[in-house]
Amino acid sequence: MGYNIAQKILLEHLVEGSLKPGEEIAIKIDQTLTQDATGTMAYLQLEAMGIDRVKTKRSVAYIDHNTLQTGFENADDHKFIATVAKKYGIYYSKAGNGICHQVNLERFAVPGDTLLGSDSHTPTAGGIGCLAIGAGGLDVAAAMAGYPYYLKMPYIVNVELKGKLKPWVTAKDVILELLRRLTVKGGVGKIFEYTGEGVKTLSVHERATIANMGAELGATTSIFPSDEVTYEFLKAQGRESDFRELKPDEDAKYDEKIVIDLSKLEPLVAMPHSPDNVHPISEVKGMKVDQVAIGSCTNSSFKDMMLVAKILRGRTVHPDVSLVISPGSRQVLTMMTESGILSDIISAGARILECTCGPCIGMGQAPGSGAVSVRTFNRNFKGRSGTADAQVILASPAVAAVTAINGVLSDPRESGEMPEVSEPKQYYINDNMIIPPAGEKEKVEVFYGPNIKPIPVASKVGDVIEGQVLIKVEDNITTDHIIPGTAKLLPLRSNIPALSEYCFSIIDKEFAKRAKSVDGGIIVGGENYGQGSSREHAALVPLYLGIKVVVAKSFARIHKDNLVNYGILPALFENGMDYEKIEEGDHLLLEDVKEGIKRGKGVLKNVTKRLEIPISFDLTKRQINLLLEGGLLNYIKKNLGEDQQ
Amino acid sequence: MGYNIAQKILLEHLVEGSLKPGEEIAIKIDQTLTQDATGTMAYLQLEAMGIDRVKTKRSVAYIDHNTLQTGFENADDHKFIATVAKKYGIYYSKAGNGICHQVNLERFAVPGDTLLGSDSHTPTAGGIGCLAIGAGGLDVAAAMAGYPYYLKMPYIVNVELKGKLKPWVTAKDVILELLRRLTVKGGVGKIFEYTGEGVKTLSVHERATIANMGAELGATTSIFPSDEVTYEFLKAQGRESDFRELKPDEDAKYDEKIVIDLSKLEPLVAMPHSPDNVHPISEVKGMKVDQVAIGSCTNSSFKDMMLVAKILRGRTVHPDVSLVISPGSRQVLTMMTESGILSDIISAGARILECTCGPCIGMGQAPGSGAVSVRTFNRNFKGRSGTADAQVILASPAVAAVTAINGVLSDPRESGEMPEVSEPKQYYINDNMIIPPAGEKEKVEVFYGPNIKPIPVASKVGDVIEGQVLIKVEDNITTDHIIPGTAKLLPLRSNIPALSEYCFSIIDKEFAKRAKSVDGGIIVGGENYGQGSSREHAALVPLYLGIKVVVAKSFARIHKDNLVNYGILPALFENGMDYEKIEEGDHLLLEDVKEGIKRGKGVLKNVTKRLEIPISFDLTKRQINLLLEGGLLNYIKKNLGEDQQ
Repeated sequence: MGYNIAQKILLEHLVEGSLKPGEEIAIKIDQTLTQDATGTMAYLQLEAMGIDRVKTKRSVAYIDHNTLQTGFENADDHKFIATVAKKYGIYYSKAGNGICHQVNLERFAVPGDTLLGSDSHTPTAGGIGCLAIGAGGLDVAAAMAGYPYYLKMPYIVNVELKGKLKPWVTAKDVILELLRRLTVKGGVGKIFEYTGEGVKTLSVHERATIANMGAELGATTSIFPSDEVTYEFLKAQGRESDFRELKPDEDAKYDEKIVIDLSKLEPLVAMPHSPDNVHPISEVKGMKVDQVAIGSCTNSSFKDMMLVAKILRGRTVHPDVSLVISPGSRQVLTMMTESGILSDIISAGARILECTCGPCIGMGQAPGSGAVSVRTFNRNFKGRSGTADAQVILASPAVAAVTAINGVLSDPRESGEMPEVSEPKQYYINDNMIIPPAGEKEKVEVFYGPNIKPIPVASKVGDVIEGQVLIKVEDNITTDHIIPGTAKLLPLRSNIPALSEYCFSIIDKEFAKRAKSVDGGIIVGGENYGQGSSREHAALVPLYLGIKVVVAKSFARIHKDNLVNYGILPALFENGMDYEKIEEGDHLLLEDVKEGIKRGKGVLKNVTKRLEIPISFDLTKRQINLLLEGGLLNYIKKNLGEDQQ
Repeated sequence: MGYNIAQKILLEHLVEGSLKPGEEIAIKIDQTLTQDATGTMAYLQLEAMGIDRVKTKRSVAYIDHNTLQTGFENADDHKFIATVAKKYGIYYSKAGNGICHQVNLERFAVPGDTLLGSDSHTPTAGGIGCLAIGAGGLDVAAAMAGYPYYLKMPYIVNVELKGKLKPWVTAKDVILELLRRLTVKGGVGKIFEYTGEGVKTLSVHERATIANMGAELGATTSIFPSDEVTYEFLKAQGRESDFRELKPDEDAKYDEKIVIDLSKLEPLVAMPHSPDNVHPISEVKGMKVDQVAIGSCTNSSFKDMMLVAKILRGRTVHPDVSLVISPGSRQVLTMMTESGILSDIISAGARILECTCGPCIGMGQAPGSGAVSVRTFNRNFKGRSGTADAQVILASPAVAAVTAINGVLSDPRESGEMPEVSEPKQYYINDNMIIPPAGEKEKVEVFYGPNIKPIPVASKVGDVIEGQVLIKVEDNITTDHIIPGTAKLLPLRSNIPALSEYCFSIIDKEFAKRAKSVDGGIIVGGENYGQGSSREHAALVPLYLGIKVVVAKSFARIHKDNLVNYGILPALFENGMDYEKIEEGDHLLLEDVKEGIKRGKGVLKNVTKRLEIPISFDLTKRQINLLLEGGLLNYIKKNLGEDQQ
């Protein structure tokens, strides 16, 4: 039987399980990446695991999120990461070197490797044929410690690309088309594998744009073949030795198939406030625009910038528009400088920001009240820009650049001929902002700034859980509700006590105070509890506040994993209607907990209302063990101890 | 009798008074500038004055302070300024076009003109022979409305520059030498006029560096001759028609004279936490450094950047150092790009920030806890960097660049030969980020975002002032102490109610709460109260909190003016030792206030301690009128009303 690319890589890395969709498998991780918003926590956890050096082939710590640095916390966290990286054998990419996914693609990503990253856009590396998955920091720490990564074997969807993009239509429009068709839930539990003649017409960076926003489909990851285009890219990066051809076997099977005819696509935009609210530009053009932002891990390659520069050349940004450009990496910025295109962009009146995530994560350049901002980014969730009532529209660099000049949302096809742009034969290579780790025997002292507080550690699940219902929430609560990710709170990501003050603050400002006053309690949720970003802080903060169990109608996958990793019991209502039988403030009691999670069933007593509510636990054997051992960190520490005996 | 340059310009602009030092004069203002942190307030006041269009020759509104934009407030404020500028005949320099003082020098400053700016470093334009003074926003608004600017005729100090700077010694070291000799109080009530053969050896930008940091001496302003160097500069900016020769008459007189032999200077640095804590680099070198920041209105000209680039070329920034570069303007950045020096800087591993004030005003790049930061800026007050315990050292770009490579505070003279750098023959000229005002008849609607709150309006001084001493502070309290200018607070500059929560928060977190609980009270200060930046918010916020009088040993000029403008009485201890007779919490009583300020004397009763303390009021007739009328805004509105009758 033939295999597709994803199956080939998974098979090569398989440690446990078999490739049956829906079954839990464990895979060996070759490379890891972290960024600084998730990295501090991941490295605190790595330290707690008690290993000497990372066991991966390569691990890289990037600084690209907290780069505005409006307080001491960020510089301290960066120094912590720099020293911990040096000590444990991790490469450290300094602030200013670029966005993790862009730099990873340029310098580290290898076709056929597995990569686990504590950032949801880690799948960007799928553009080069790397099997790259986003996960919580604790999972990434475990991978660095040499533990396999556990996931449910995804379904593999074949996306066949036919034909060739027409002028002014770009890779961004390909993934917007998929989002239009499938919605933000359409990729859950799936890997998207791209094939077809159209693939050859796309550069590695264009493939990466598509793989990057596969995350917005909810996909586990996306992957492209590794072919002659990949080889040329690696060669131009001085990394031809990292090349390996990857293609599906002729008789490869897929669980699903989608066909996209590239030649039929037109420029698309995602209107507020979801990446799947996709419309043809022709339908929505003409809207007055206040800001245009070009950059992010989705669209900030040299080729993207080249197109933007050629559009802007000799023109002037509309007086009412603020155009901000954040190049993806130092490599991109240097090439922009040396090729002269940076001058064209500056001359048009653009503002040049640092080579970081910047406005994409709400780290600066928040639009004005009710302002319209057209962005080449990947997410336009309400409020993510830093301005609650801003209207964020996602678009390609072509649409963005033309819009910046016109001052209104514009169809680039009305701007004459599309400028010719191509990938360079040779990229600018300079790794002097990537600090290598210390030698095995060199002594490194790890720096802990006052913002770095000890991580909360879970305890083993007891036999009785009881407490007050601290909050009862609706369906579709996101991790942003549980703990927001604003410019104000991102610097607190390594300070759980301070961060915990903001738990559920969007819904209920008194939550943290109440939880502390009764020393923990119970959360009651509706459907799809914990959807959205993968931030493990949405489990860490409740853990710190003493939450022992969350009872919900259903859980989002990653958040459920995070709860288990942190020793918090995710319980399901057997009968969804029972949700109505609990009110905030009710006293709940769950007995025989250990037996219950092993059996998968239990009875939750509402002591206040004198009711009994049947609940269930949908846990794998491994997850049951994790809960019994007090979460993943304790589990790994125990097993590491046993390994070393 | 011959005149010096300052006298010549003042005479040409004199509206009231005579040039006797210490006497109040009024001068006509040719040009004004505002930046966005002071500008929103200035323009709200301009609107309140009820004029149609500005009466100045040229007024420019710059956006250079609030450019990180972590919330909607900044973009809203920028839009307010853009629309108000358009309506009232003001040029609008978009965010990204550069720091006001740098752009002003490049494009607008004219030898022999008077310039009033709502930024304390407005005297930078003295480098081109412009008589440029920093003032509160309300004074600048009044100047735009056509009112003259009132000041006490300063003493004119002649600084004779002899000889020529040795290699590795720069203009920065000239002004640091003056600060070493005179301290931060040494320039109060004075204009520094530079003459001597050494002047010819300095470019306009080097002169501007010296004039810029004249503000740190407390000087009213600094001024250089306008000579062939000035002509060449203006020509290279395409502005030769703005040239006019300016030199002192042969028999010109000065009130004081200082001689500096340039050839005797060595590289100097100002150690924490004051610009006058100056030491030769040879005494302090070797200290480990965490951050190096190059830029600001003091040292971010193309020539500065060229020197930095040549030092960095082919080298790598020390792994433990974060080097951040903020070019002074879009002109500088473009020339850096086109000349290739930007590549050299980026290749060395520097982080390139926007062309704004940035870290100099604590707008990002806050150092880590206790970190050492070497900066080419003009101020190193404690906490100004955004990190309370950071150690900020002021240095020249030469010292900064060499230090960035070595990782320790370094003497550049130990780095071999100094690279040759010179001013270009032709600057890059492109004014497309400067939006001209609307035509006289074009209708413009002013945009008011929700962060813009009504301005507090002073009331007439009453006959009895009494209250509790809310705070008693030491000597040299800066306006940064009174109301900090951090990244967190700058966005609140047009929202006085929100900003007032942070009054004196660096010293006393309870101050605002206490002031509100007793509905106002009295501030007691030491020497040089209110030094530092010109921010009128240091008067507006106390006004909002109900402060009626500040008693101090002495006041910094601009802050005293601001207090009077906002109807707050600045009172002086007749006997400095009486400062000891008051404690926080004492109840003070001042009777016959109106008579007292007219007579210039009064008796402050310490009711709690049963003591009588003689005080004086050093106020001009005009200032007395302002206080009696309830501040400048009420005064202008009243007079404008009378004018129109």
